[in-house]
Amino acid sequence: MYPNWLAQRVKMTPKRKALTFGQHSWTFQQLFDEAMNLAGSLKTVGIDNGNRVAILSPSNPSLIVTIHACWQLGCEVVLLNERLSDGELDYQINDAQPTLLLVDKDYQARVANHPSVTLDELAEKASSKFEIEDEWPIDRTMSIMYTSGTTGNPKGVRQTVRNHTTNATASAFNMGIQSNDVWLCTMPVFHISGLSIFIRSVLYGMEVKLYSKFDLVKVVDDLVDGQVTRMSVVSVMLERILRELEERDAKVSPCLLTMLVGGGPVPSNYLERAISRGIPILQTYGMTETASQTATLAPEDAVRKLGSSGKPLYLSFIRIDQASKPFEEGEICIRGGHVTPGYIGSHTTTASQVKGWLHTGDIGYFDEEGYLFVVDRRSDLIISGGENIYPAEVESAILQHPQIREAGVCGMSDEKWGQVPVAFIVSDEDMTLASLQAFLQAKLAPYKMPKALYQVNAMPRNASNKLLRRELRAWLISKSSK
Amino acid sequence: MYPNWLAQRVKMTPKRKALTFGQHSWTFQQLFDEAMNLAGSLKTVGIDNGNRVAILSPSNPSLIVTIHACWQLGCEVVLLNERLSDGELDYQINDAQPTLLLVDKDYQARVANHPSVTLDELAEKASSKFEIEDEWPIDRTMSIMYTSGTTGNPKGVRQTVRNHTTNATASAFNMGIQSNDVWLCTMPVFHISGLSIFIRSVLYGMEVKLYSKFDLVKVVDDLVDGQVTRMSVVSVMLERILRELEERDAKVSPCLLTMLVGGGPVPSNYLERAISRGIPILQTYGMTETASQTATLAPEDAVRKLGSSGKPLYLSFIRIDQASKPFEEGEICIRGGHVTPGYIGSHTTTASQVKGWLHTGDIGYFDEEGYLFVVDRRSDLIISGGENIYPAEVESAILQHPQIREAGVCGMSDEKWGQVPVAFIVSDEDMTLASLQAFLQAKLAPYKMPKALYQVNAMPRNASNKLLRRELRAWLISKSSK
Repeated sequence: MYPNWLAQRVKMTPKRKALTFGQHSWTFQQLFDEAMNLAGSLKTVGIDNGNRVAILSPSNPSLIVTIHACWQLGCEVVLLNERLSDGELDYQINDAQPTLLLVDKDYQARVANHPSVTLDELAEKASSKFEIEDEWPIDRTMSIMYTSGTTGNPKGVRQTVRNHTTNATASAFNMGIQSNDVWLCTMPVFHISGLSIFIRSVLYGMEVKLYSKFDLVKVVDDLVDGQVTRMSVVSVMLERILRELEERDAKVSPCLLTMLVGGGPVPSNYLERAISRGIPILQTYGMTETASQTATLAPEDAVRKLGSSGKPLYLSFIRIDQASKPFEEGEICIRGGHVTPGYIGSHTTTASQVKGWLHTGDIGYFDEEGYLFVVDRRSDLIISGGENIYPAEVESAILQHPQIREAGVCGMSDEKWGQVPVAFIVSDEDMTLASLQAFLQAKLAPYKMPKALYQVNAMPRNASNKLLRRELRAWLISKSSK
Repeated sequence: MYPNWLAQRVKMTPKRKALTFGQHSWTFQQLFDEAMNLAGSLKTVGIDNGNRVAILSPSNPSLIVTIHACWQLGCEVVLLNERLSDGELDYQINDAQPTLLLVDKDYQARVANHPSVTLDELAEKASSKFEIEDEWPIDRTMSIMYTSGTTGNPKGVRQTVRNHTTNATASAFNMGIQSNDVWLCTMPVFHISGLSIFIRSVLYGMEVKLYSKFDLVKVVDDLVDGQVTRMSVVSVMLERILRELEERDAKVSPCLLTMLVGGGPVPSNYLERAISRGIPILQTYGMTETASQTATLAPEDAVRKLGSSGKPLYLSFIRIDQASKPFEEGEICIRGGHVTPGYIGSHTTTASQVKGWLHTGDIGYFDEEGYLFVVDRRSDLIISGGENIYPAEVESAILQHPQIREAGVCGMSDEKWGQVPVAFIVSDEDMTLASLQAFLQAKLAPYKMPKALYQVNAMPRNASNKLLRRELRAWLISKSSK
C-alpha cells in the first residue's frame, strides 16, 4: 500500500503552491478541491473505482485536474498524445477500450468514431459524493501511455503506483530536493517526461510552472530571472535555449539546479555551450517502460564522461546482456520497482520482463567506471525532437499504399530536430514525396511523416530477408557526402 | 526487494565522502571495502547469511563498519546500549540468543557470562570469500533494538529494510536533500536516532560527521563554521548548545538547514532562543518502533504551533484512537511502512500492530489544522536526556529488594535532563537513597537510577489496584511547591 498521493500531500502542506500556469496559481488544497469536485462529476456520469478513463487534451491545468480527479476516484488514465493522427488515436482507443473517453472540446472531431464527453460538459455535471481512499494498492495501474515497438503495433504501457513512486524516490536520491524547488514543465503531460514532473510535485510538495507549449522567450526569461530551479528538456529545446541565451548574451540564474536532458543523445557542442551559460546539465536515459529516468549523468561528470547517460539511479539496476566486461556492447536490460509490469489491450499477454529484467532493445555498454553509454536505440528507433518514431510503424503505414511493394524507413540527421524520418520505397510507378505525404496524412502524426522519399529497385535485406535499416542509413550518408 | 544499501551506493558515488571521525575520513568505496573485508572475517568465524549478530560498542567508525559488514553478509544486528547495566545486557543477550556476540575489548568484562569475540580479534581473522547480494528482501530484519514497555520486560524491536527505507524516504520528502549535506551525529548509533542517520547517508549519498560523545565545544564550532548542514539532538543537548552560543555571542552558520529535536517535549524558551541563534528547529516525534521520525514540525510553524510535533510525514498515517474531532485526546496510533512488524525472543508472539496500526500508548490530539500534539508519554514514560525510562522496569528492579513491599516510580522535572526518575516505596524498615542505589547498581543503567527516594505508607491505587503514577507526580509537585 502507498498513501493516496494528492490527499496525503494536502494533509501535510495544503497552502504550498502546487501549480502555476500563466497568471494563475493553485495551492495543493485548491488542486485537491478541484480534483475532488471533478471526481464527483465523473461519479455522476457513472464512472467508478477500477474504471479506465482515456483523456485527449493539451497539456494544461485542466488536464492536471482531470488526471488527479480520475486517481481520487480510483480510475486509471490512458493519456492520448494530441500530436497523433486520427487513425493512430482510433487504434489506441480501440485497443484500450476505456470506460469513458474525455476530450478537450477542440479535439472532439478527431475522435468522432468514438463516444466521448468533453471536459467542459463534464465540468457542468453535478458532483456526487464518494468515499476517498487513504491508501492505494502498490501495484495499481495509474497511467497508460502508448509506445511503439519492433512490430509496428503500439503497446499500451502500464505505469503503477510502485513504478511512479520508485522513480520519484530514486530521482530525489540522485538530484536532491530543496524546499524552494519549482519545476518548469514544457514537456507534454501525456509523455512520461511530463507526467513524472507532476508526480514528483505531489510527493515532494513542489511547485510546477507549466506551459502548454515550449514558449522560448518566456522559458528563457524564467531561467535567467531565477523563477525556476529544475527543468526537463530534449536536445532540440536545449539548443533553442542556448541560442536565445547567446543572442541575449545572458547566463541562467544560479537558482537553476538541474536541467535534465533526455530523449536521445546530446551533441557535445551543446554541452560545452550549456556549461558556459551556467546550465547544470544532467544527461539522462529513460523510457515510458521505466516511468522516466533510469540512469543520469551528474553535472560534475558532464565533460569528463561526454556522451554517457551516467550511472543507474539508486533504485535501478542496469546490465548489458551477455557482456562480461567493460566496453562490451550488448542489449541494455533494466530491473527495478520502476519497470512496468506489462501492457494492456492486444498486448496484455506480451511479457514486459524476462526473469525480472526489461529488455529495452537499445544497445549500450558500461565503461570501466560503470558509466552507461547508449550506442544505438532499439529497433532503429528515430528520435525527432524528443518524440520516438519507430520505423516499422511508419513502414507499415506506407505499405497500405496499393502501388508500393516494399518500404524502409530510417532517420536522417537534422540540425533542428536531431533526426527526421525518411522513406525508401520499391514501386512500379513513380511516386512523389507530396503524394506519399497526402496518403499518410490521416495515418501518421506530422512528426512521423517522411521528410524525404527515395525510390529504389530493391531493399537491402539479409539472408533471412530481414530489412537492414542500417544499410539505408549508410546510403543516406554516402548520398549526403557526395 | 530493495537494492543492497551500501553496495548500490558504491556503484553510484564511490568517491563521495561517507564518514568523518576526528581527522579521519572514509569515502563510500573505502567504507564498503572495509565492511567487505570484515564480512569476510565474520564468514571465517562461521557466521553466514541469516545469522544474528549482537554488537556492544561505543559509537565509533568501527561500529559503523561492523554493522555494514553484518549487512553485507546478510545478517541482522542487535545493537546493545553501552549505557545499560551488566544485568540488563545479560537479559537482552539471553533474549536475543545471537549466533555471535561482538564486543569492544573494553566492554568484554561486562558480558563475561556470554561467549564473545572482540572487534580486535575479529579484525585479525583472515577474510573468506562470499557471494554478495545485489538485492535484499524488503521484509528482512536489519536491526534489533531493545525498548521497554508497560510490562517492564524490554522487547527486541525488529527494524526491516522496509521500515528503514520508508523512514529515510519520508524524511527526504519532508526535509529535502542537498548535494552538499553533512549530518552531524552525536546520537548513539545503538539508538534509532543515530542509526537512522547512517541509513540516510547510504541512501542519499550523504556524509556523516560522527562524534562518539557529545563534545559541546567541537559541535558548536562545527555549527558556527558551517561544517554541517543537518543535526539531530535531544532537548538537553539543544540547551547546552544554546548556552554555549549565548556565551560566545554567536549564531550558527546559515549552512545549517535543519536541527531535528526529538526524544520528548522541547521547552518553549529553548525554541525562542534557538530562533534568535539562527537554528532551524524541526520538532519531531518518533520511536524505535517507527524507525525514527513519524511526525515533524516545520521551522516556519515552530512558533505558531509551539509544542506541536507537527504533521505526519508523507509515508506515515497517524490517528487518535476513538477521537472523532480536533482537540479530542486519545491514544496515538501509527500506520505505515516504517512501523515494525514485531519483536524477537520472548516477545516474538507479541503483536506490534492492531489491524495495521501501532498503538503507541502515548496520548495526544490533533488541532483543527491537523497538527499533532503529544500530551502524555506512553506508560508514564520518563524521558531523561533523550533516553527512555519505563517506570515499570525500574519498579521491578526495586521490588527485588527483600525489604521493599511496594514501589512506584515517576519522573521529576530536572533543569539539565528534562526529567529524572524518583522512587516511592512501602517498606517496614527505613531505607536510604544510597542503600537503594547500591542495591540497584548491577541491575539498572545509571540514567535509570532513582535520584530521590520517598518512603510512604501506601501506594496510590485505583479500584482494580492499579498503581496511579500520576498521583505520585501530583505528590511531587505539591511537595516542591511547599
